[in-house]
Amino acid sequence: MTGQRKDVLIDCDPGIDDALAIALAHGSPALEIVGITTVGGNVALDLTTANALRLREYLGFPDVPVVPGSPGALLRPRLDAAAVHGDSGLGEVRLPPATLPPAPGHAVDFIIETLRARPGEITLTAIGPLTNVALAVRREPRLVEWARELVILGGSYTRGNITPATEFNMAADPEAAAIVFSAGWTVTMIGLDVSRSALATGAVLERMRALGTLGEDLLVPCAEFYGMVTATEGPAIHDACAVAYLIDPSLIEIEPAVVEVETLGRLTSGMTVVDFDLRGRTPNALVGTSIDVARFWDLAMSAYSRINPASRV
Amino acid sequence: MTGQRKDVLIDCDPGIDDALAIALAHGSPALEIVGITTVGGNVALDLTTANALRLREYLGFPDVPVVPGSPGALLRPRLDAAAVHGDSGLGEVRLPPATLPPAPGHAVDFIIETLRARPGEITLTAIGPLTNVALAVRREPRLVEWARELVILGGSYTRGNITPATEFNMAADPEAAAIVFSAGWTVTMIGLDVSRSALATGAVLERMRALGTLGEDLLVPCAEFYGMVTATEGPAIHDACAVAYLIDPSLIEIEPAVVEVETLGRLTSGMTVVDFDLRGRTPNALVGTSIDVARFWDLAMSAYSRINPASRV
Amino acid sequence: MTGQRKDVLIDCDPGIDDALAIALAHGSPALEIVGITTVGGNVALDLTTANALRLREYLGFPDVPVVPGSPGALLRPRLDAAAVHGDSGLGEVRLPPATLPPAPGHAVDFIIETLRARPGEITLTAIGPLTNVALAVRREPRLVEWARELVILGGSYTRGNITPATEFNMAADPEAAAIVFSAGWTVTMIGLDVSRSALATGAVLERMRALGTLGEDLLVPCAEFYGMVTATEGPAIHDACAVAYLIDPSLIEIEPAVVEVETLGRLTSGMTVVDFDLRGRTPNALVGTSIDVARFWDLAMSAYSRINPASRV
Amino acid sequence: MTGQRKDVLIDCDPGIDDALAIALAHGSPALEIVGITTVGGNVALDLTTANALRLREYLGFPDVPVVPGSPGALLRPRLDAAAVHGDSGLGEVRLPPATLPPAPGHAVDFIIETLRARPGEITLTAIGPLTNVALAVRREPRLVEWARELVILGGSYTRGNITPATEFNMAADPEAAAIVFSAGWTVTMIGLDVSRSALATGAVLERMRALGTLGEDLLVPCAEFYGMVTATEGPAIHDACAVAYLIDPSLIEIEPAVVEVETLGRLTSGMTVVDFDLRGRTPNALVGTSIDVARFWDLAMSAYSRINPASRV
Repeated sequence: MTGQRKDVLIDCDPGIDDALAIALAHGSPALEIVGITTVGGNVALDLTTANALRLREYLGFPDVPVVPGSPGALLRPRLDAAAVHGDSGLGEVRLPPATLPPAPGHAVDFIIETLRARPGEITLTAIGPLTNVALAVRREPRLVEWARELVILGGSYTRGNITPATEFNMAADPEAAAIVFSAGWTVTMIGLDVSRSALATGAVLERMRALGTLGEDLLVPCAEFYGMVTATEGPAIHDACAVAYLIDPSLIEIEPAVVEVETLGRLTSGMTVVDFDLRGRTPNALVGTSIDVARFWDLAMSAYSRINPASRV
Repeated sequence: MTGQRKDVLIDCDPGIDDALAIALAHGSPALEIVGITTVGGNVALDLTTANALRLREYLGFPDVPVVPGSPGALLRPRLDAAAVHGDSGLGEVRLPPATLPPAPGHAVDFIIETLRARPGEITLTAIGPLTNVALAVRREPRLVEWARELVILGGSYTRGNITPATEFNMAADPEAAAIVFSAGWTVTMIGLDVSRSALATGAVLERMRALGTLGEDLLVPCAEFYGMVTATEGPAIHDACAVAYLIDPSLIEIEPAVVEVETLGRLTSGMTVVDFDLRGRTPNALVGTSIDVARFWDLAMSAYSRINPASRV
Repeated sequence: MTGQRKDVLIDCDPGIDDALAIALAHGSPALEIVGITTVGGNVALDLTTANALRLREYLGFPDVPVVPGSPGALLRPRLDAAAVHGDSGLGEVRLPPATLPPAPGHAVDFIIETLRARPGEITLTAIGPLTNVALAVRREPRLVEWARELVILGGSYTRGNITPATEFNMAADPEAAAIVFSAGWTVTMIGLDVSRSALATGAVLERMRALGTLGEDLLVPCAEFYGMVTATEGPAIHDACAVAYLIDPSLIEIEPAVVEVETLGRLTSGMTVVDFDLRGRTPNALVGTSIDVARFWDLAMSAYSRINPASRV
Repeated sequence: MTGQRKDVLIDCDPGIDDALAIALAHGSPALEIVGITTVGGNVALDLTTANALRLREYLGFPDVPVVPGSPGALLRPRLDAAAVHGDSGLGEVRLPPATLPPAPGHAVDFIIETLRARPGEITLTAIGPLTNVALAVRREPRLVEWARELVILGGSYTRGNITPATEFNMAADPEAAAIVFSAGWTVTMIGLDVSRSALATGAVLERMRALGTLGEDLLVPCAEFYGMVTATEGPAIHDACAVAYLIDPSLIEIEPAVVEVETLGRLTSGMTVVDFDLRGRTPNALVGTSIDVARFWDLAMSAYSRINPASRV
């Protein structure tokens, strides 16, 4: 029953963990992807868009619009994470070139129009830098009423990854993040405090491999490439945590908080300063604090197993 | 010969000096107003829009679209200048209520679409905070190629007005100003260094009064109200200087410079830091350094005398 | 054997946890207090000095100089923690007034002269804001060679206490902290990451009470007052952790790190940004990461039991 | 009558204009130099100290103590102006090596002790970065009562020299400048707005040359070297303006103002933000606005002519 599915618009910068997140969203019977917008982030916009287009055809949802957006941050030079995601943004994975073009128009307009058309019905999830979302909400403040929910992957209330204080997506566009958190909606923030637990361990890789083509061609190579640059027992599949929350919110504990984004610091610009002590203030965020890792991977494997990918090159 | 006129899109926050600038643009045979977009600034957006609508009908160009835009700055609370411009934004002047509505849509889209439709032909002039222009150029980077010219009223290379370091329009949205100056076009910056010279002295008021209805009903009351809050020999009609430059660039001396906008300072955010010493760098601005005041007022009186205003309330 | 004792100069702002730390230092056979310098911090300088003087006589080391120093931060208004430490700085405890005056001179000079006189022999420990130490090391850069060791209580590499990002001592004088961490010595930083574990639980209070007079008159009332304003199972006795490290470094795990102090942020000034990933850089800090709580309290009780306090008022 | 002379302690970083200022102070019958303290600034501390020592013997006041102080800024790397002042700090001038050593001790202590010994009698003038003065006033807050007057050379209320927004001495240590301006005394600020007028034009060089040995050996070579790096009709002899004000305050117009120093800006740190509009606030500064250039040079030539220099190498 499509009517009970959650319709989601995914703003992203694929990116390895974006790819695993998009696959999770597509494979899950609980979600319906109504559009994918891209932003420059992990790699440049032309690559994030090309990757989104390839994933769309490879994973099999060719009718969903892919709309390119902002190439870089509002005010700052683009941070690059090609060292983590490979020059292409998808590690060593080589998906077939896309045969279909992106939709005309711009991500910012697409976000506004999609939410305007169905107020209260579309969940917006942003798993890259928040440039597109910030431009959209400043261009159209009613977005905060029209969005059913806004769930982002980013930030941290303890330690960062790109610097000791900051997480990549927030540090990539601190001013955009500050705009989004202060726009008047309640942001569900799934950050490193959660995603650092969702490691693709050796056992997880085994389960991915057992899925057949999708596992062998996309999931495992992505995770293995990602894993080469991390020092833990496996790479954290950050973006997939935000999508998992959309599928089953009970997977992740959340706490209300007042979140502000530092934009002035020399060492801390882009830091999400998370205050759980409300002292009478209205929270502007629901912040993820922990994830049920076992159930997360069960849910992911179940979704991945439903995907029937195109053949690779 | 319309074909030789300069087509101008005016982004503004009327505002007393905006009113005198819009009248100047409308009265000049050298300019054709192709649209007016509004921004929250001197007073709130609903008032700046209402004032633009009233001026449109009172001055007599009802077919030109007026399109409302951003209510406040990208990142900061709105600075208010109602103490200078009166609660209505037009001092004690009470123009008849507008009978025609604003155009549908949003200033940011209107700016983009107007320039896209006629690349290289439209001059954009921004005489309020730069929020709309910044959102437009981040949403559509090709704006820098499509604009025939961008002329702003704002900034200073010596001292400010809202604080010792900052001018109102730039301080009202420092991040927007930083975006606009770094977007890749050459910004013609007419700032306080120029506009502080363009004082509506007693002699100027006499000439305004001699113009008849427009002078008695709009120009003189505006200038007198504005003058009450200044300590000089007459108020500076800032915004009109930018429009005067569009009409006759020879009125204002300009120098190439590298202009950066401070966004991090405690006392200086919104300051335009103007470096005339290029040291091999490509200038991103042409900065006004002086104005021929006598010719400026001659030009203004000539334009004002061509206006046939509607009757006031 | 005094010769094997560690001679320590304690810079402090008593302060409840300072009182418990000073008692710990005095009671321990491993340490010899060679001087106490005071700084405005938890409460104003006249109170921190008065409290140091009272503690000196009450605990019984009247020959050790107490030297007052800086009333407030280098650049910022003084942060006050009277809400946590009581108006007097020692909660409800009322020690007898001191009969002996402070030493003449200033803490900054005393620190410099004490270390100059015995290069390599004196351990400096700072358990309040770092104003005195920063002034001393800028006034006399050779301090970094003369100090046997510098151990501070302050900072955090996860979350703060006075704000989500900052710990009280560092936030009280961010510029001083930045100076101290960049002065060229290796700072041993015992921060909230360690001290948050050293809670004075009910069981600890029982052990304090069993110590007799000192417990009943000073330790328990201090801890109980401190505990009223915290939400955990007992108050964290921060400053005592730094002193415990001096007594027995094996109590606390430390890791080398590059620590920088944010001084520019709106929400984060005073944050210790701790990078454990050295990437070839020379560490400027040894950062405490965990404490053996059971051994800590054993050591503390053993030291406290050796003190023969004067009678209270 | 020495009793009517003004006793001045000069904190400086010689530096070409420092040399001309020290000569002016020594030659003037109105001033008595009671000490010279040095700071790292135009060139490194060892050079500014060596230059002060050489000037002392060459100009002929060998009994006045020269006391070295801070090598660099409180918080920031040292700005260097060797490009302007030559590698030695005195251009091409080669004074004989000093035969007498600096006084023992540190500038900060010397400033404190000198003013403490004669409260209300000593004028402090600082013509380099304010590091020593800031450390002194934080170490000994009563300095603000003890100083007869504090006159600095630095800052600007219009444009800077080292950057468009900042003057060298203030930009060299913004935090020190912020401390000094907020310490509670009234700072007489002689800045670029004044000193830019005091140009050593061709006519001035002629007068210097006519003075004989001092002119030919020191003044003219200094001014000519300095002039090579400026684009005006002659170099501005900044520091001498502050000393000239001490000799004859009527030379310089001053206005009361509230001066704050920006310490957070990316482009503006070290800017003196000067507000002449007191709005009921107590001014913390007297800011020089203009100088009588003709009388300034008369006064300078008169003072220089009284000096009987040692022979050069």
